[in-house]
Amino acid sequence: MTSQDDLLPVGLEDALPARARTITSAMRAVLDAMDAHGYDRVRPPLVEFEHSLAGRMDGVATRRMVRFTDPDSLRTLALRSDMTVQVGRIAATGMASAPRPLRLCYAGDVALLRADQLDPARQRLQLGAELIGADSVAAASEVVSVAIDALRAAGVTNISIDFTLPDLVDTLAETSLPLDADKRAAVRRELDTKDAGGLREAGGEAYLPLLYATGLFDDAIDKLSALDAGGALASRIEGLRAIATTIGDRARVTLDPTERHGFEYQSWFGFTLYGEGARGALGRGGTYTIKGSNESATGFSLYMDPLLDALGGPEADTRDRLFLPLGHDRDVAARLRAVGWRTVAAVSDGDDAAALGCSHRLDGAEPRPL
Amino acid sequence: MTSQDDLLPVGLEDALPARARTITSAMRAVLDAMDAHGYDRVRPPLVEFEHSLAGRMDGVATRRMVRFTDPDSLRTLALRSDMTVQVGRIAATGMASAPRPLRLCYAGDVALLRADQLDPARQRLQLGAELIGADSVAAASEVVSVAIDALRAAGVTNISIDFTLPDLVDTLAETSLPLDADKRAAVRRELDTKDAGGLREAGGEAYLPLLYATGLFDDAIDKLSALDAGGALASRIEGLRAIATTIGDRARVTLDPTERHGFEYQSWFGFTLYGEGARGALGRGGTYTIKGSNESATGFSLYMDPLLDALGGPEADTRDRLFLPLGHDRDVAARLRAVGWRTVAAVSDGDDAAALGCSHRLDGAEPRPL
Repeated sequence: MTSQDDLLPVGLEDALPARARTITSAMRAVLDAMDAHGYDRVRPPLVEFEHSLAGRMDGVATRRMVRFTDPDSLRTLALRSDMTVQVGRIAATGMASAPRPLRLCYAGDVALLRADQLDPARQRLQLGAELIGADSVAAASEVVSVAIDALRAAGVTNISIDFTLPDLVDTLAETSLPLDADKRAAVRRELDTKDAGGLREAGGEAYLPLLYATGLFDDAIDKLSALDAGGALASRIEGLRAIATTIGDRARVTLDPTERHGFEYQSWFGFTLYGEGARGALGRGGTYTIKGSNESATGFSLYMDPLLDALGGPEADTRDRLFLPLGHDRDVAARLRAVGWRTVAAVSDGDDAAALGCSHRLDGAEPRPL
Repeated sequence: MTSQDDLLPVGLEDALPARARTITSAMRAVLDAMDAHGYDRVRPPLVEFEHSLAGRMDGVATRRMVRFTDPDSLRTLALRSDMTVQVGRIAATGMASAPRPLRLCYAGDVALLRADQLDPARQRLQLGAELIGADSVAAASEVVSVAIDALRAAGVTNISIDFTLPDLVDTLAETSLPLDADKRAAVRRELDTKDAGGLREAGGEAYLPLLYATGLFDDAIDKLSALDAGGALASRIEGLRAIATTIGDRARVTLDPTERHGFEYQSWFGFTLYGEGARGALGRGGTYTIKGSNESATGFSLYMDPLLDALGGPEADTRDRLFLPLGHDRDVAARLRAVGWRTVAAVSDGDDAAALGCSHRLDGAEPRPL
């Protein structure tokens, strides 16, 4: 009976009830946590001018966006592949006159024309918060805190957070570890892949010790500090220590100062979030500058698929279900729903309470266990 | 300072905080009301094979869908323009073996390449519920009830519901008011536009009295019944009366038996929902047959934009906001958030509680009004 029309394109899928219910509950928990920290939700559209989406931030790959021609303007439109750029646009336009710092959050689907090899999904549910107008240690501490609270609210356990310094190479290359501009890209790349041999070949031998200033935060930050003879990193190191202090026992903190993957547009501070049960990162964040408006900002994004992994996958719905037989009293049923009962009404003689997953049956005005 | 990149394409817009907040709260209320009636939410993807979306139901205009080529399958993909067809597909595939009747609900964005002249929006937030496996009077009564409960939960007042008989002409043409097959389309069209002159010209003079069986339900259904000398509509009229009885005083019921606009795929029963404050319909529903699987079903869809009109537009956020000065006790702040306070933390000396919209300021462990 299955025809081609029953199939979905690769990388796109339905969330059936158990999964959809877990998504909704995790999303509400994350949004409510961000709201409690004063972040106001905005809802940008699914589609924008391609040029606008692509122009607002580095690191957005336009080639992988779904693009099409607008029959009205004859310009190219694109399906959003990242909501952060949309929030940056809102901050610079519709909310340009709102007081700073401006706290905005979002949750919505983003899409790609073609997925990457590691993650076949072409649609992802992205959730995040942006603190616009600040990229200080205080801003970073708050954003890290909001991210951890959001994950905890959703039910993630054993959270770890991995700090990085996205502009580390640029900073050192200008100061204590001079490096020609044309070598920096190669050195960054080899540091990112942790390839000691490649790093030597790329002329970055002096950067080798950075590969070992990684691991549990307290130990790794001491190593990084010891390497920073010239003090070029002093303010960054002090900043990282301050942020780590505010986390307390809510998450395990690690440091990987040369990690750059996923931090194409961040400035001095970046972080990756992990949780028990999820193979990959739950999300990323950091400080950055909004392209176009040049406002400084700090924010993070989470993705629902790894978040669901961290929650142990979809949870079955174990709530009571009250079967309402044909001819039941509608007012009684409405009153029971108002106090929290979930009802399933018979629409024919053949409807079977047990088959429909009901735990109770309405008997007069009384719900009775099946 | 405004550049072209600051603009959004025609028919697409941001929901800024007040509007986004009202949308979120209305959406949660609608989904919770559907959930209380036993409807399980599903989340189909934004994009499917065009052929699959277009093939599953009549009345879906593929020409207005955003379409593009899938680089993987080389088939044409489309952005969904209606989620009902996706729920029909889910019922026929992923949930084919779930017991019937199957209750599913959904909420999500749908998009059009080009809007229609009456409504410039190219993206709409659609919400709805589908009862799959039944299109009886009992099924229709339940679905109407869920729709009204959902609107009331969202805060809509003075709800009215307009009943129609989508297959009225086909039914009469086969029985008491014979009409050649080639004239039916024209007669349907003239009845739909309530054009008495056009109806005569189209050869539908016998159908003229139907134009007057409209208005408040009790009166109009009597008129329709009086017209139905042959009894061809008897079961339909009895059905409508039964459905109307279950509504009670929750909504004003009207009848417009020849209304066909928006009911291209419904069978014997259709309804349109209205509420105070909204110019147009809040949503529509009715009985239908799922194309492909041929299952009978009853459902309805609401749209967020008219729903917001009916709610009087976006509501300002009047909740308390607690300003947390620099150096505040983070544990105290966390405890206050846990009991419902919404906090806004200073990230620099310059942050001003009043300018940031705060109503209170944390003083030691105590929130004090500003």
